[in-house]
Amino acid sequence: MPRKSRVVGELGERRVIEVLRKRFDVFSGSPVPFGDDVAAVSIDGERVAVLKADMLVDRTDVPCGMSLWQGARKAVIMNVSDFAAKGVQPLAVLVSLGLPRMMTMGDVEDIGEGLNAGAREYGAYVVGGDTGEASDVIVAVSLYGTAVWSRLMLRSGAKAGDVVAVTGLFGKPSAGLRLLTENCTVPSDVREVLVDSVFMPKARLREGLSLAGSGAVTSSIDSSDGLAWSLHELGKMSRVGFVIDCLPLAAEAELFAKRCGVDGLELALYGGEEYELVVTVKPERWSDAEAAVQSVGGKLFRVGRVTGEKQIVQILDGKKQPIEARGWEHFKSKA
Amino acid sequence: MPRKSRVVGELGERRVIEVLRKRFDVFSGSPVPFGDDVAAVSIDGERVAVLKADMLVDRTDVPCGMSLWQGARKAVIMNVSDFAAKGVQPLAVLVSLGLPRMMTMGDVEDIGEGLNAGAREYGAYVVGGDTGEASDVIVAVSLYGTAVWSRLMLRSGAKAGDVVAVTGLFGKPSAGLRLLTENCTVPSDVREVLVDSVFMPKARLREGLSLAGSGAVTSSIDSSDGLAWSLHELGKMSRVGFVIDCLPLAAEAELFAKRCGVDGLELALYGGEEYELVVTVKPERWSDAEAAVQSVGGKLFRVGRVTGEKQIVQILDGKKQPIEARGWEHFKSKA
Repeated sequence: MPRKSRVVGELGERRVIEVLRKRFDVFSGSPVPFGDDVAAVSIDGERVAVLKADMLVDRTDVPCGMSLWQGARKAVIMNVSDFAAKGVQPLAVLVSLGLPRMMTMGDVEDIGEGLNAGAREYGAYVVGGDTGEASDVIVAVSLYGTAVWSRLMLRSGAKAGDVVAVTGLFGKPSAGLRLLTENCTVPSDVREVLVDSVFMPKARLREGLSLAGSGAVTSSIDSSDGLAWSLHELGKMSRVGFVIDCLPLAAEAELFAKRCGVDGLELALYGGEEYELVVTVKPERWSDAEAAVQSVGGKLFRVGRVTGEKQIVQILDGKKQPIEARGWEHFKSKA
Repeated sequence: MPRKSRVVGELGERRVIEVLRKRFDVFSGSPVPFGDDVAAVSIDGERVAVLKADMLVDRTDVPCGMSLWQGARKAVIMNVSDFAAKGVQPLAVLVSLGLPRMMTMGDVEDIGEGLNAGAREYGAYVVGGDTGEASDVIVAVSLYGTAVWSRLMLRSGAKAGDVVAVTGLFGKPSAGLRLLTENCTVPSDVREVLVDSVFMPKARLREGLSLAGSGAVTSSIDSSDGLAWSLHELGKMSRVGFVIDCLPLAAEAELFAKRCGVDGLELALYGGEEYELVVTVKPERWSDAEAAVQSVGGKLFRVGRVTGEKQIVQILDGKKQPIEARGWEHFKSKA
C-alpha cells in the first residue's frame, strides 16, 4: 500500500507524532528538546516558561463507570503529571471543551467542577478556554508554569551508574481497568483501591518539586504510557540502558494477578495510565533524593541502575530478560 | 423542564461558558479579566505571560471544500487573531489533535504542514502537543507569548468620545460561506476573493502590534464572532455604548448581496469568522493610530464613536437603529 494511504489506526500514535514533527520548523531557542514531557520558552537568562497540552477523549480515555467530573479532573491530572516529572509548579490551566449537542447543563456543571477540582488540587487555576460542538466529549487541557532552567528534570541526563527509582508501586490502574472490563472478581476492598486508581489518579507533584529542588536527579519522566515505555524513552533521550532488578508491584495488583490469572509483571511494566515518576539519581546523592521525597510525605523506591549498554533489561530469577518497548497506546492499537 | 436537563444545543456556547466559569475559582492575581480574548499571568512587575486556547472542529468550523491543510492553518489563525487584538506577539504554539482512525498518513502530513504554515506566517513555532483518537478532526491550539502589561489592549478601557475603528472592510467571509452552501453565482474573480477569505483567513497581527505600540488605543477585540457581537462585548466590558455611522462593507460582499438578494448590513454585522480588529482610539491620538497601522501596510477605518449611553446603535438613512447582540454562533444554534 502506498505510504501516504496508510491510516492512523494502523500507524499508532507514536508514528503519527513522528510524521507531524517532521513538518514543524525547529524552534532553535527552546531550552527543552522537542519530545520531552513539556515544551519550554526562555523568559530571561535563568527562567523559562513551561508549557504542556494533552487532550482527553471520552471514547478512549474514559472507561465505563467513570463520571464526567472524574474525566474532567483526570484531563487536568494527566497534564500536571508531566509538570511533576519536570519538577515544575503549574500556575494556569486553559481548557478547550468539545461537547455533544445533547449534553445537559448538569453535565457541563460536572465538567466545570471536575476541571476546577483538578487544578486547585495542585495549586493551579483555570484561567480561560473555549467550547464547541463535537461528537465526543473532548477535554483539551493546556498548562503554563515557570521554572528555573537549570533545575528542570529532563528526559536526557541519566548516566551509567545512576540509581533508577520510582515514586510508588505499580500495576494498580491496569488491574483496575481490567476489573472494569473483564469478568473477574476480587475482594471489595481490593476492588475499591484498584478502581479508585483508575477513576481518581494522583499526580506526584509534591514529589517532583521536591526532587527538582534536591538537585540529586539526573533525568525524569512520568509513567503515563507504562513503566516499560518510560524506561525506553529515558534510555533513548539519555543514550543509556537500564537493569531493573526490583519491580515494585502493588499488593492489590499482585492479588488481582493471582486471582485472575494475569501476569503481574505485565501489569507493572506495560500498563500505563499510571502517574508515578521514574527518575535516575546520582548514586552519591541517593539519600538526599530519598529524604526529599520523604519530606513531602512520599517514598522513593530503588528499582535498578543505569548502564552504558543501551539495553533495557530486568533480572528475573537471576536471568536477564529484555523489557519490551511497548505500552498502553500500542495495546489499544492492536486491540 | 428542570434547569439542569436543558441541553447544550439549546443553551448555546455563551451560556455554556457562563455555566463553566461559575465553577472555576477566581485567579485573583490575573492581570487580565476572565472573559477577555486572552488569559494572562504576571511574570514580574512589568511583564506578563499571555495564553490562549481555541479549538477547531471539522464538523462545525471547516466548511465544505476547505482542505485539511487550510483547516489546520485556520486553527492557528483563530488564536493568533486574539493575540493580535491584544497586541501580543505569539511565540509558541501547542496543538492537541483528535484524529479519526481512518485518516491517512497523507492527511496527517497535510495537517502538520498547515499548522506549521499558520505558526510561521506569524513568527511563532509549533513546540509540542498531543494526538489521540476522536470521531471528528479536532485541532485544539494553544498559544503563548509575553507582553508588557501596560501595553496590552484589553476589552475594557473605551471612553465616551473615543473613535471606533476597524482594520478592514467587512462581509467577505459571510458572503463566501453563503456562496459555498447556497445556490447563487457571482463573477469568478469575486467568488475567488470571497471564498479565499473563508479558506485563507488572515490575522491582523502586524496592525495589532503596531497599534499597541502607539499607545493610542483604549480598547480592542477581534471580530471573529461578528462585528455586532464584538461591539456588544467591548460595550459590556468598557461600560459604554457606540454609535456606528459608517459601516465598511467590502465591495465583493456588496456585489454578492445585490446579486443574491441578501442584506449587506446583515453580512457586515452578524457574519463572524472575520478576523479584523475592532478598536477604540483616543480622539486626540487618532492620527497616531492611523499612522501606526499605515506603517505596517494596513489601513484603519473610522466607523463611529463611543458614547456614555450604553446603547449600541447604527445610523441608517439618518435614523438610529439598534445593533443586535447576536453573532455567528447564535445563528448556528438556531439552524
